[in-house]
Amino acid sequence: MMRPGIFCSLLSQPAAQQLVNFDLKHWLILAASGSVGSTTVARDVMRIGIVGLGLIGGSLGFDWRDRGHRLLGYSRRPATCERAIARGVVDHASPDPAVLTEAEVIVLATPLGVLETTVRELRDYWHPEAIVTDVGSVKQPIVAALDPLWPRFVGGHPMAGTAENGIEAALRGLFQNRPYVLTPTDQTDPAAIAVVAQLAQELGSVVLHCDPASHDRAVATISHLPVFISASLIQTCLQEPDPAVQTLAATLASSGFCDTSRVGGGNPELGVMMARYNQAALLEQIDRYQIQLERLKTAIAAADEPAIAAILQQNQEMRPRYL
Amino acid sequence: MMRPGIFCSLLSQPAAQQLVNFDLKHWLILAASGSVGSTTVARDVMRIGIVGLGLIGGSLGFDWRDRGHRLLGYSRRPATCERAIARGVVDHASPDPAVLTEAEVIVLATPLGVLETTVRELRDYWHPEAIVTDVGSVKQPIVAALDPLWPRFVGGHPMAGTAENGIEAALRGLFQNRPYVLTPTDQTDPAAIAVVAQLAQELGSVVLHCDPASHDRAVATISHLPVFISASLIQTCLQEPDPAVQTLAATLASSGFCDTSRVGGGNPELGVMMARYNQAALLEQIDRYQIQLERLKTAIAAADEPAIAAILQQNQEMRPRYL
Repeated sequence: MMRPGIFCSLLSQPAAQQLVNFDLKHWLILAASGSVGSTTVARDVMRIGIVGLGLIGGSLGFDWRDRGHRLLGYSRRPATCERAIARGVVDHASPDPAVLTEAEVIVLATPLGVLETTVRELRDYWHPEAIVTDVGSVKQPIVAALDPLWPRFVGGHPMAGTAENGIEAALRGLFQNRPYVLTPTDQTDPAAIAVVAQLAQELGSVVLHCDPASHDRAVATISHLPVFISASLIQTCLQEPDPAVQTLAATLASSGFCDTSRVGGGNPELGVMMARYNQAALLEQIDRYQIQLERLKTAIAAADEPAIAAILQQNQEMRPRYL
Repeated sequence: MMRPGIFCSLLSQPAAQQLVNFDLKHWLILAASGSVGSTTVARDVMRIGIVGLGLIGGSLGFDWRDRGHRLLGYSRRPATCERAIARGVVDHASPDPAVLTEAEVIVLATPLGVLETTVRELRDYWHPEAIVTDVGSVKQPIVAALDPLWPRFVGGHPMAGTAENGIEAALRGLFQNRPYVLTPTDQTDPAAIAVVAQLAQELGSVVLHCDPASHDRAVATISHLPVFISASLIQTCLQEPDPAVQTLAATLASSGFCDTSRVGGGNPELGVMMARYNQAALLEQIDRYQIQLERLKTAIAAADEPAIAAILQQNQEMRPRYL
C-alpha cells in the first residue's frame, strides 16, 4: 500500500528547497493566477486526502481533481462519501480512515472545533511523511494545537465561502482570485510549505504567507468584527421599544440595511466559533471599534460637520483598497 | 396660462374626500403595485413640475411621463435642463422658474439643505392651489419648515436610490416595489395627500403613511445608523497601528467586509445631511446600538457561548423580516 519513494521524490526536487519568506513584514503574493510556472515544487499528479467533505473540502476536491490529482475523501457519514463520489468531488471516499493511508497531502476541512480531535483520531492511518494542512479561519490556536501533533503541518486558510454549507454546496472555482493564507512557523518544513503553496496556486488563489498572530489580527478586523457590529445593528432594531416604529423600520429597510446586516444575520455557529477561537484579537478590535464610533457620535452631537465630512471622505477614498 | 378650473375639478372628485389614515398606529399599505384602481382621485393626466433634475427627480419624471403625465422640469443649470429633455425625463425644462406656473403638482427633488430656500425663492411662480411635495430622506424638520410656507404641502420620501447621482443616473422603474412614505400632519389637506399617494402608486411603489417623527426614528435605525456603524468599521481598519497588518487586512477583506463597509464608504455629503437633519433620532439610535454592542462584547469576554448563540440565532431568524 505504502509507496514511500513517492514521498521522497517529492522532497528531493530542488525547487522544494527554496526559501519561503513567512515574515509578515515581507509577506508576498506568490501568485495572482492559477498558472503553474517554472517554480513547480510538487509532482504534477498527487494523491490528496480531504478530511471533511463539506463546502470547502468539496470545492477543493473539485478543482484539484480537475487538475489531474487523485482525490481521496474521508467523512464519518457514508451518505456524504457517496454524494462526494457521485458529484465528482473525489475519486474515492470512505468513512474508513484507512482511505487516507496513501495520501501525500492531507487537507483538514472540518469545523474548527473538531480539528484537534480529528488529527488525534486519524493520524495513525496517515503516511508518516504526509504533509498536513487545514482550512481553519483562525490560525494561532489551531497552529499551536496541531504543530505538536504532526511533523509536517502547515496552517492554511483559503478565504472563500458561500451562504450554503455541505457537500451539495461545493462548487468549482470557489477559490479563484481569492486569498489563500499560509501561516507557517519557524518550525515548519519549507518543502511542506512549498507543496501547499503550489496546490493553492493551482486553485487560482492569491497565496499569502504570514505568521498566525498577524493573520488572526487581520481577520478579526475585516471578517470577525463585521459579524458582531452587524449583529448589534440587528439587535438594535429588534429591541426598538415602539412596536409600530419597529414594524415601520422593517418595512422601510432597504439595500443599506440589507448589506450592513448580512453577516450579523448569518450562521450563528460561525460567529460562536469566531468568538471562541479568536477571542483576544476580536475583543481588541471591538475596543478599537468602540473608540471610532464614540468619536463619530461626539462629532454628530457637536454638529461638527467638518469632522464628520473628513471621516466620511477618508472612508470613501480608502475603502476601495479593501475591495 | 392659468386654468384654475382644472385644479377645482381635481378637488371636486368625491374620492378625493376619502379619509387617509396617517396615525402610525394604523399606518397602512395603500398599494403594493402600481395599478390604478377605482379609488383614483386625480385626473389621469396631470401637469407635474419637478424641481431638481437629479437621480430622484429624473427617475420620477421618466415613470410619470411614461404614464402619460406632462412633465415640467426646473433646474438652475441650463445644461441639466437640456439633458433632461434629451433623455426624455421631462416634456419641457428650463432654468426660468415660470416653467412651473402651470404645474398642478410640484415635486421638490433638491438636496435637503436647499429645500426651504428653494420654496421661498420659487413659490411666487406656482399656482396657488398647486400641491407641493418633497422627496427628502428626513421628514420632521422638513415638514416643520415647509408646512408654513405652502398651504397644500405633503411631506414625502420615495425610498430608492443608486450609487450614482445626477440626471445621467436617472432610470425607469427605480421606485417599483420600493416604499414611498407620506408624512402628512393634522393640518395637511386630505385631497392633496390622496393625489400624491396616487402618483406614488403609479410608480409601483408601496405607499405608506406615518407621522414625520416616526418616519425619522425608523429611518434613523435602518438607514442612518448603518452609515455610521459602517463608517466606524472602515475607520477601525484605517487606524490599525501595525502597517503590515493593515495591508494584510486590506488584502484579505472579502464580501463580508465589502457589504458591511459599503454605506460607510459612500457619499460623504449624504452622511453629513443625515447627521444634520436627523441628529436627535440618530444619536438616540447610536446610544441604543452601543448598548447592544457592549452586551455582545461582554458575552465574548466571558466566553458565554449560549448568550452569543442566542443573539445570533435570533438575528438569523428575524433578519428576513427586514428584507
